[in-house]
Amino acid sequence: MPRISVDVSQLSEKVSIVSKIVPSKTIKPILSCILFKLSNGEVFLSATDLESGIKARLRCESEGEGKFAVDAKVLNEIVRTLPDETTAEFTLSEESVTVTCGRSKFKIPTVDPSEFPDLEASAGGTEIQIDASTLASMLEKVIFCAATDEFMKNLNGVFWEVGRELLRLVASDGFRLAIAEERVISNNETSFLLSLKSMRELLSMASKNEEQTLKILYDGRCVSILANDIEMTARVVEIEFPDYKKVLPKAFKTKVVVSTDELVEALKRALVIAKRGTESIRVDVTEDILRISSRSPDYGEAQEEIDVRKDGEDILAAFNPKFLIEALRHIDSEEVELNFVDSTSPLQINPVDVSGYLYIVMPIRIV
Amino acid sequence: MPRISVDVSQLSEKVSIVSKIVPSKTIKPILSCILFKLSNGEVFLSATDLESGIKARLRCESEGEGKFAVDAKVLNEIVRTLPDETTAEFTLSEESVTVTCGRSKFKIPTVDPSEFPDLEASAGGTEIQIDASTLASMLEKVIFCAATDEFMKNLNGVFWEVGRELLRLVASDGFRLAIAEERVISNNETSFLLSLKSMRELLSMASKNEEQTLKILYDGRCVSILANDIEMTARVVEIEFPDYKKVLPKAFKTKVVVSTDELVEALKRALVIAKRGTESIRVDVTEDILRISSRSPDYGEAQEEIDVRKDGEDILAAFNPKFLIEALRHIDSEEVELNFVDSTSPLQINPVDVSGYLYIVMPIRIV
Repeated sequence: MPRISVDVSQLSEKVSIVSKIVPSKTIKPILSCILFKLSNGEVFLSATDLESGIKARLRCESEGEGKFAVDAKVLNEIVRTLPDETTAEFTLSEESVTVTCGRSKFKIPTVDPSEFPDLEASAGGTEIQIDASTLASMLEKVIFCAATDEFMKNLNGVFWEVGRELLRLVASDGFRLAIAEERVISNNETSFLLSLKSMRELLSMASKNEEQTLKILYDGRCVSILANDIEMTARVVEIEFPDYKKVLPKAFKTKVVVSTDELVEALKRALVIAKRGTESIRVDVTEDILRISSRSPDYGEAQEEIDVRKDGEDILAAFNPKFLIEALRHIDSEEVELNFVDSTSPLQINPVDVSGYLYIVMPIRIV
Repeated sequence: MPRISVDVSQLSEKVSIVSKIVPSKTIKPILSCILFKLSNGEVFLSATDLESGIKARLRCESEGEGKFAVDAKVLNEIVRTLPDETTAEFTLSEESVTVTCGRSKFKIPTVDPSEFPDLEASAGGTEIQIDASTLASMLEKVIFCAATDEFMKNLNGVFWEVGRELLRLVASDGFRLAIAEERVISNNETSFLLSLKSMRELLSMASKNEEQTLKILYDGRCVSILANDIEMTARVVEIEFPDYKKVLPKAFKTKVVVSTDELVEALKRALVIAKRGTESIRVDVTEDILRISSRSPDYGEAQEEIDVRKDGEDILAAFNPKFLIEALRHIDSEEVELNFVDSTSPLQINPVDVSGYLYIVMPIRIV
């Protein structure tokens, strides 16, 4: 009978990583499970929601070969209640697996593992190398712009444009758009769209492995990302991402340089009133002062003034303050550039003296 | 025109304290407001939900006399966005108040203050003195037992039994009951029931003023608790609390002494399976071993063993594991006593060698 003996801390880490991909509701019982695969003295745990999957190597001692699947939620909860610095033993029998740890003993039913779907990018296609910390930072800067509505499939994700030396990530919800660019090493030029859910998983995985270089494989159907003992795979979304280059403004009439912090704080104050009214704020730049104002029929009005440096014409435009605040939160530089064309054209926001990040937001018509 | 000049940190602290009592939904607009009262150079903020109220002294400079009321949520949000270490100025005009702080300016509409209800215990009745830290600890030990259903008015609160030297707090939801006792100084013997909502507020207030001695006034209608600049008032619930003394077990047949931590950890593991089945666990004490087991038709079974010291007969009984875990979390002593009468009578749990806390829980019938 196959057996596994594993440190509880190692078990807990890996079960928690693969559990995250398990869908909270599913009609296929096997998708609510974690698959254990014992082969050649190695043990792998896998879970998938059909769109993406995670496979993790369990560092442990094992005997025998075989596969079994158990409910992910139950296993995860059990593992979290086991005392650290102890060893858990798994013993497989006909229709159940017994987990013992000290004087605790669980008998958990197993599910037929033969129906567990296989999801993995085959080697031989595009191969990209990128630092995990770089990828995490890029994803953080664009992910918040993606449409959260799962029915807007073409915007409910992150678009990857892979060059031989440059990776560009793009996300948009139709009202705003963010672009992050960094240097990478790739053996090919290509592009693909990955779902928002899988990109959130990837962000979490990249953030937890910040020291590592990730290897990314793309075979035209799936993308696999490898780090340490973890392999994450996402099926590409087979829908065209909109031609975002059309909305990028070309010539600006006004450039305003302003302290990022001061602008965020002023916007947050104006938001208190704006969110109880038209959800909009007015931005009025006259000479070297930027004025923000908002108004609500029942809750009053707010006014803010900030000193700025301005090149070009005075400008008056209205925006959704949340869209500005969210963008500014993802800009690390002390000062930020607001690049206006006019009050009805998209505004471009970018850090001062740092390339690699662009944010475009549509203004609201001033009534 | 009345004016107030106040440090933002002081304003923020006091607005946040009184805001907590503001009901999230109300049909009376005045109840969603904070009342500002300027008189004799002092400024007080008040809010109430009719059942309880909080009044706080604002340490500030003020000019003029008068009252005004503004929306609590809006004010609280504004104040939290103002920069610390600055001063905010309030200027009252006909139908609004203007708040300025640096280059930020808000104009907020005011609400007619004349309808603001008055809630305060008059002096001359019962007066109790108790350390805030003692009261906080007592409340924490009983509050979790109160019925959360607001329609069970007689159990949706904490019952206070006041003696000249002893305060006893009791709460129960019909399935379990907790009693906490401590020494106090009182000029009278009395008892009253206070609502769970007001007791949660009081716990929060007592926890934040742990160094203080609280003065508690009771006039037969309201209870006011005074600490520092804060006065909290709760209207007593005019319904009789059940005669809880009837359920207190008198003679025990089995006493089990067990490590509190070990028991909690074992119960948590058994709960993983129990909550997917009958919501019950079996406790079986034979000689000096306590065995816990649970079972679920779809998710398997769990078994635990703990060494204990037992006086009296062996015992087998079933309980809702959540009710045991919640009680044990409120026991600070390393070891805990389980005092059984038999498998169908209430179980009494109390710390070993520490008086002042009792917990009673009904068993579940073993099928």
